[in-house]
Amino acid sequence: MCGIVGYIGPREAGDLLVSGLRRLEYRGYDSAGVAVVNGALDVRKKEGKVDELAKLLDARPVSGTVGVGHTRWATHGPPNDVNAHPHEASDGSFAIIHNGIIENYGAIKKRLIEKGYTFESETDTEVLAHFIEDVQNEADLSFPEAVRQALTQVDGAYGIVGISRDDPDMLVVARNGSPLLLGIGDGEYFIGSDASPFIEYTRNVVYLSDGEMAVVRRDGYKVFQIDGAPVSKEVHALEWDLEEIEKGGYEHFMLKEIMEQPHSVADAMRGRVHPQEGQIRLGGLQKVLPQLVEAERIVICACGTSWHAGLAGEYLIEALARVPVEVEYASEFRYRNPVLTERDVVIVISQSGETADTLAAVRQAQGAGCLAVGLVNAVGSTIARETDAGVYLHAGPEIGVASTKAFTAQVAVLAQIALLLGAERGVLSQDEVRRHAEALAAIPAQIQTVLDGEEQIRRMARDYRYASNFLYLGRGANFPVALEGALKLKEISYIHAEGYPAAEMKHGPIALIDQFMPVVFIATRDATYEKVVSNIEEVAARGGTVIAITDEGNRDLDALAEYVVEVPKTIDALEPLLTVIPLQLLSYHIAVMRGADVDQPRNLAKSVTVE
Amino acid sequence: MCGIVGYIGPREAGDLLVSGLRRLEYRGYDSAGVAVVNGALDVRKKEGKVDELAKLLDARPVSGTVGVGHTRWATHGPPNDVNAHPHEASDGSFAIIHNGIIENYGAIKKRLIEKGYTFESETDTEVLAHFIEDVQNEADLSFPEAVRQALTQVDGAYGIVGISRDDPDMLVVARNGSPLLLGIGDGEYFIGSDASPFIEYTRNVVYLSDGEMAVVRRDGYKVFQIDGAPVSKEVHALEWDLEEIEKGGYEHFMLKEIMEQPHSVADAMRGRVHPQEGQIRLGGLQKVLPQLVEAERIVICACGTSWHAGLAGEYLIEALARVPVEVEYASEFRYRNPVLTERDVVIVISQSGETADTLAAVRQAQGAGCLAVGLVNAVGSTIARETDAGVYLHAGPEIGVASTKAFTAQVAVLAQIALLLGAERGVLSQDEVRRHAEALAAIPAQIQTVLDGEEQIRRMARDYRYASNFLYLGRGANFPVALEGALKLKEISYIHAEGYPAAEMKHGPIALIDQFMPVVFIATRDATYEKVVSNIEEVAARGGTVIAITDEGNRDLDALAEYVVEVPKTIDALEPLLTVIPLQLLSYHIAVMRGADVDQPRNLAKSVTVE
Repeated sequence: MCGIVGYIGPREAGDLLVSGLRRLEYRGYDSAGVAVVNGALDVRKKEGKVDELAKLLDARPVSGTVGVGHTRWATHGPPNDVNAHPHEASDGSFAIIHNGIIENYGAIKKRLIEKGYTFESETDTEVLAHFIEDVQNEADLSFPEAVRQALTQVDGAYGIVGISRDDPDMLVVARNGSPLLLGIGDGEYFIGSDASPFIEYTRNVVYLSDGEMAVVRRDGYKVFQIDGAPVSKEVHALEWDLEEIEKGGYEHFMLKEIMEQPHSVADAMRGRVHPQEGQIRLGGLQKVLPQLVEAERIVICACGTSWHAGLAGEYLIEALARVPVEVEYASEFRYRNPVLTERDVVIVISQSGETADTLAAVRQAQGAGCLAVGLVNAVGSTIARETDAGVYLHAGPEIGVASTKAFTAQVAVLAQIALLLGAERGVLSQDEVRRHAEALAAIPAQIQTVLDGEEQIRRMARDYRYASNFLYLGRGANFPVALEGALKLKEISYIHAEGYPAAEMKHGPIALIDQFMPVVFIATRDATYEKVVSNIEEVAARGGTVIAITDEGNRDLDALAEYVVEVPKTIDALEPLLTVIPLQLLSYHIAVMRGADVDQPRNLAKSVTVE
Repeated sequence: MCGIVGYIGPREAGDLLVSGLRRLEYRGYDSAGVAVVNGALDVRKKEGKVDELAKLLDARPVSGTVGVGHTRWATHGPPNDVNAHPHEASDGSFAIIHNGIIENYGAIKKRLIEKGYTFESETDTEVLAHFIEDVQNEADLSFPEAVRQALTQVDGAYGIVGISRDDPDMLVVARNGSPLLLGIGDGEYFIGSDASPFIEYTRNVVYLSDGEMAVVRRDGYKVFQIDGAPVSKEVHALEWDLEEIEKGGYEHFMLKEIMEQPHSVADAMRGRVHPQEGQIRLGGLQKVLPQLVEAERIVICACGTSWHAGLAGEYLIEALARVPVEVEYASEFRYRNPVLTERDVVIVISQSGETADTLAAVRQAQGAGCLAVGLVNAVGSTIARETDAGVYLHAGPEIGVASTKAFTAQVAVLAQIALLLGAERGVLSQDEVRRHAEALAAIPAQIQTVLDGEEQIRRMARDYRYASNFLYLGRGANFPVALEGALKLKEISYIHAEGYPAAEMKHGPIALIDQFMPVVFIATRDATYEKVVSNIEEVAARGGTVIAITDEGNRDLDALAEYVVEVPKTIDALEPLLTVIPLQLLSYHIAVMRGADVDQPRNLAKSVTVE
């Protein structure tokens, strides 16, 4: 992952780079660094969060109007000062920052060592720096040309920015697999892994595509392919504004985003769900609707929380539209040589639209002749651009590393797709579509009702904050919610929580049950309710602590569970939109009580742009 | 689950029932009891394993030549003396033992309490006993007729045996969803959840089907449906013998079964895999082969370890035969109203052939007009009888609750099916079939090589025995092995271990990584090896402990991993047959060192015959 920022223009670069890195910390925060040119190449880098770097810069400031900055998420070598970026040439003539993984770094390093190069760090990035240096020296090349020729010999994924002492009015940028964009200001240019570092200065951006490089000078920029061919790029205008990516009075982005869900889910349905007419209208799918309706099979590819949304989508689409759905881990899909035909449709889901494995799944699907549909939050992101059609989530920027409002927006959009297909395929009558559309339209207010019960969840968090393990169990539409509830707790509280389909418990996980194992059951009164109650009895019989999420007015579980959390009643397939809310809050409050860093949990990064 | 035994004949019943219960302990072991008639109805029951019951019977013996015995796996109410079976009528005129779940017990109990009945236990079984009593008293019925009429009003799954003080030369037996069979001796009859309690007395058995009852008297037995219609049953001859279900010098059944795998995998291929001819011959599939070859999609349904084998099968069948495969939890499949067409083939996998959810999946598949194929170990089991065709595993009896040799036999059979389909569908040339068949034929000796390395695994177990959490990561064919390795550790050591596809780690689980989290990587040099090595670097960079399973001669990981376990090289898709072996041994040795009861882990039972 890693966050990248760059600046060239009339301002002092140092402060601008640091404030940009703070916005990018969601992408990695184990060490950070900057390089600024002002006659010499000044490099400062430091283990820890951006704050540590800022302290260092207070003590030893830099000066200059061109510079690069980096916040790291370690891939090769532990987080420390030496492994932090930027990495320099042996003679200090240039420095680079890098996001991604150089896969053949081992072989290159070996050759360089044989040639006498020495290495201070364990990173693949230092290898790349010395490799560029070697290519430059062998043929007496300019810095941009050396970068270009070196990259033609590199395997892997990268976003790179280089800065040169000897050619100081220039930044060299290259992208292959890791997101990078240029911000086009008035007499100044910005570079970022996303637009957040420079959004208050300009909203005009150029998205680099894979295999593209740019040379950015004070008076303009040129984009070309790594093979040297020039490329002409369009300038896009950004939609989000700065206020939207700030905390708005909440202690953490995650809590703000949990609390925003009545609005974000409504936004994901606005202009799309029409209960009166019994209609769903998804403009982004209009042109491919015939192909989607005729699909013999839908394959959903995603990672992490989006994969859980995909499982909820499988349930929705199979139940409402009767199309067979298979849900794949994007990372497995791409290497498994999946069996695809042109009658299959592939739906990919990614909040950032930059998830490396999911993007690879898009390309694999298109290579097999399949229609690729994207469910993406970040407008203009790579996946949004490369898919054949798609539906934006319109959830607004999600900054908290643990995804919350993106999940509910994803499920809401999948429900709309399921309804649209159900109607178009003649599976659902107009009355049924209307009934479901009404239920969907009621969801935002119902989410608010669940959020209003936060105090109960806070009490629960106090009771369970010392647990070191958790199980989450659900069935049917709520099985993905069990997985998602467990993932939330893992991500931000570092408690080992695991989700399972409730009936699988007896095939192994029940061995873990004792008085130290709280078990969260999602037990709404749907088709499998009686079976889930039997599973609750089995846990209770073995001394396990039961926490139940159920629907309003159900008093049956009071005797079996320590806590019963009620959510409003809705149609079975839409339940995940409500049952996930208390689990998001539970993980949030437990993490806060354990003193964990909710918005920047250890080891994680928001947008997984390496494989 | 629960184990059931019954006897009527010339012998003393007490000792015979206890020795039968010891054989059935794999089905449950939290409490046990017997009832014997000899003028009065003598009931003895005790919390704990069968040994505790045996001590009680030494102190207070029973006498009589007709009796029933039960070893419990708790569903309703914790394990204790009162909740143990048998449960009696209020006046002690009869007793019943029961395996399964009465789903409408709450409503029935409420009615009975209104009529003045009192309850000592929290079980659904006591409710059934009083309900039978009530039906009997209301209409002055015989005991068998009262059982029959009561059962027509009961929802749920059960295997029941009743014994009456007033009509003592008789046992009443009923089955709906839980396995029961009669052993037909010479002037004596046996009843069992399986044949193990009476295999030394007779090998002639009658399998009861769902909805059937039997009245067994000293001079013969009658089988009829619960609606009263008579049924004529065939007598089958059993294949396994007693020696096969004993430990053969090993300390635990599980270790014996791990060590047997060179033989059991060979048995699963014997007469089926013909490398010279480049042919796979599976007699059990012959009659349905055309339908199987034409399948548009294969859906695999299973639970627990068998579900993991199914995932390995997905990889094998998609890679070698290019048929799309979907793997479903049987418990989810049956309630999800899955989208099935007559061109889909459903393969179910179950060691015991009695797994309740898997059996329900068979019926659902057949109801949708699909061909249902069974991969089953226990010959004559319900799933073997109800599927349209199938392949027996021939792994021999598996007694250890944690499945080991059944898994490798299942994967070996799935590999054969993949090869057969690949050949028949023209995806594989005869040469490719030959090459794969040779690789398969080499597996048993390669497993032996891995087993010969047991000493290294024992050292690893010493190093990691105090860990309280574990992660297991793999990709492609080895992702199911990661899940299976984690499940083994959960089941018998009660360590919270979790499996993940390696690339998903970055989407959440990596937050759990610190110096207390050992991570087992299956990192063989296949198509995704480089990516897995990147994941290993990421774990190492965060202080996690790495244990690597790789292929022979790979020294790349020595610097990154605390232990590197090598397995012989085979074809990618067959790797699970080798990589799973060290993980089985690791879980076994850790569990032994932690003092856990390997063959009878807490809370579990071998054959999950309730939902």
